[in-house]
Amino acid sequence: MINIAVMGHGVVGSGVVELFYKNRESIQKKVGKPMDIKYILDLRDFPDFPYHEKFVKDFSVIADDPDIEVVAEVMGGLEPAFTFVKTCLEKGKSVVTSNKELVAAKGAQLLEVARQNGVNFFFEASVGGGIPIIRPLHSCLAANEIDEIAGILNGTTNFILTKMIREQSSFADALALAQKLGYAERIPTADVEGHDACRKICILASLAFGKHVYPEQVHTEGISNVTLEDTEYAENWGGVVKLIGRAKRLEDGRLSAMVSPAFLSHESQLSSIDDVFNGILVRGDATGDVVFYGKGAGKLPTASAVVADIVDAIKATGTSKSLHWVDDGENHVEDWRQTESRFYLRLSGLDREKALQMVRKEFGDVEELHRPKQPGDEIAFVTSLVREQAAEEKLAALRGAGLALLGKIRVLDY
Amino acid sequence: MINIAVMGHGVVGSGVVELFYKNRESIQKKVGKPMDIKYILDLRDFPDFPYHEKFVKDFSVIADDPDIEVVAEVMGGLEPAFTFVKTCLEKGKSVVTSNKELVAAKGAQLLEVARQNGVNFFFEASVGGGIPIIRPLHSCLAANEIDEIAGILNGTTNFILTKMIREQSSFADALALAQKLGYAERIPTADVEGHDACRKICILASLAFGKHVYPEQVHTEGISNVTLEDTEYAENWGGVVKLIGRAKRLEDGRLSAMVSPAFLSHESQLSSIDDVFNGILVRGDATGDVVFYGKGAGKLPTASAVVADIVDAIKATGTSKSLHWVDDGENHVEDWRQTESRFYLRLSGLDREKALQMVRKEFGDVEELHRPKQPGDEIAFVTSLVREQAAEEKLAALRGAGLALLGKIRVLDY
Repeated sequence: MINIAVMGHGVVGSGVVELFYKNRESIQKKVGKPMDIKYILDLRDFPDFPYHEKFVKDFSVIADDPDIEVVAEVMGGLEPAFTFVKTCLEKGKSVVTSNKELVAAKGAQLLEVARQNGVNFFFEASVGGGIPIIRPLHSCLAANEIDEIAGILNGTTNFILTKMIREQSSFADALALAQKLGYAERIPTADVEGHDACRKICILASLAFGKHVYPEQVHTEGISNVTLEDTEYAENWGGVVKLIGRAKRLEDGRLSAMVSPAFLSHESQLSSIDDVFNGILVRGDATGDVVFYGKGAGKLPTASAVVADIVDAIKATGTSKSLHWVDDGENHVEDWRQTESRFYLRLSGLDREKALQMVRKEFGDVEELHRPKQPGDEIAFVTSLVREQAAEEKLAALRGAGLALLGKIRVLDY
Repeated sequence: MINIAVMGHGVVGSGVVELFYKNRESIQKKVGKPMDIKYILDLRDFPDFPYHEKFVKDFSVIADDPDIEVVAEVMGGLEPAFTFVKTCLEKGKSVVTSNKELVAAKGAQLLEVARQNGVNFFFEASVGGGIPIIRPLHSCLAANEIDEIAGILNGTTNFILTKMIREQSSFADALALAQKLGYAERIPTADVEGHDACRKICILASLAFGKHVYPEQVHTEGISNVTLEDTEYAENWGGVVKLIGRAKRLEDGRLSAMVSPAFLSHESQLSSIDDVFNGILVRGDATGDVVFYGKGAGKLPTASAVVADIVDAIKATGTSKSLHWVDDGENHVEDWRQTESRFYLRLSGLDREKALQMVRKEFGDVEELHRPKQPGDEIAFVTSLVREQAAEEKLAALRGAGLALLGKIRVLDY
């Protein structure tokens, strides 16, 4: 009998328990051995729950039980999750997790502890919910050099942007709707300001490029400054506004990484990924572009990824050596101000012809954009490639000349 | 030293050799052991090729060499590929293949031979080229019941349809362009008539549902009857025409499967997959819809999948028990004439009002469609759900009343 412990009985944890018992027969067939959940760790009581006798409040019951082979950590947050996971790995138990905050902050360390103890630390559910992405990326990696990864990694912000684009909702109205539907938290900062997407691109970049990328190394902008007017200009340009997390291998071996709103052309495969869906593009030297699409969150999709990891952890013999990255101590992430990008800019305060003249002096030739009901003193345009820092300096010059910046969004080619 | 043999030095085979030596260092790091290609089997001579000393013409050199652990079969065709693969498995060598014809016709048998000999038979490259699909489907399966699979599985036909839709090319012109660009064979039957897509949906359905689905069990229609007018009506309806291979689990445990052109709404994630790209939608009970997108063919993408399989075959210990399906002898595929579908139909020969009256008598309420320059005696519409057989009978009645059938395409909801 293979014994499992589930730590945390919130949305994902209860989904893991539900899905495990629903598909237990076929799961056991895949593993080839009988399996059961022995403990569910939660501080709360669930007296009416069918498996209430499995609940424990004391972590040491799980840690000290040598029968437990695999632990699913679905509590979320850094602590006590980190201490619990590390302890389990040190006691020779494989751990699978849906906790992106934990993997983004402590992945390299926990993978190393797993290696030293001959067990596995899997985290398919930490990115993309039910979309298989960690394992396919890992298998792509077997024969490819990954050059670039870009994705719509947060369903809440994608829902809000979709409402703004399709129904001309304001950001505030779209956020309120997302909260009403349960897609956004009451305090929506982690989603709206891009922190959640940042953690996920850190995990993907760490795996793809082999060195831990920490959230604080990645310049992150959310969508709270995106306006309806920006989405109208995007439409005029031939695209949409999406929140994109991206990471790219540079020629000198370092990488660039950023989370920000972006104009994406209607031609882009990522542009048609709407509502709460996620999509991740992986650019390999042999495969070209491969895109993975699906529900990036939710109880059962995420639980499905956790259960798939449990199955893999049981089937694995010894540590997976290639699902691994290191903390190399150095800063291998390029200063974001050195990154080149095209920009959509929206400015106001001067007569159109005069403003354009000044813009051309700073940015050279630009592609002008228009929107319905555009005031006479407002201009919007897309620049050529320019370094972030240089763009800031040029904008400062324009501000000095009496132009106010109303919108600034990067224009990306995916 | 792990020794590999590559059987076949055509497009894919030469790509495997090229990619292996290009990324050999990182591949060996993933495997954890030194690796080399010892033999390349091909009847032709390649005197100028850098690895020409590795070429052999006699299969028994590979079969009889106990040093060969993994064989990549990239010859294509049923024979001698089948005999060679079977022999290798019986001699305790794992085999990886890109040969969809072989897997679709002999998958259950070869998986069983692999199992009996404690080795693996992998075939990631047989569907979707460089898109990881077999392994993610297999991992989805660990925790999900798969309800349905649908995909754009053939790049050549997707290129032709894209040209017809975007540039109003006729089918013949689009095919000629595809041949000129090397996307279509001189004799394009396997692609254009849907046989290639059929083999791929057979492989996916066999893996997802556990019983071998043979190509001859799957009703298959190609795109040679799709006209420019059909694509115009699709646009008017709010969608595009795509060649879709699909398989679905039925409540009685059997499954339905078909390959045919289809109207897909612009809302469908598959509708925006254009040119030579492939896309595969997997509908799981826990994950919901997951879509995989990328280049479905080509030298390096396909080679990348073969090399990833080689790496997995070396890392595996014993046979993968869950990457498996059986030949159950019975016909578990529903007679396609019992399948329900909505239909787009285009008819001519009678005055519009009179024709519509007769159509409504047979099909009930229909959604009428229009196109530019539509003749007065032509009507087109989309029906409600109707069984294939009943649709045929209703069409026969309409023919009997003087209406000629100009177009008939299924309307699908993916």
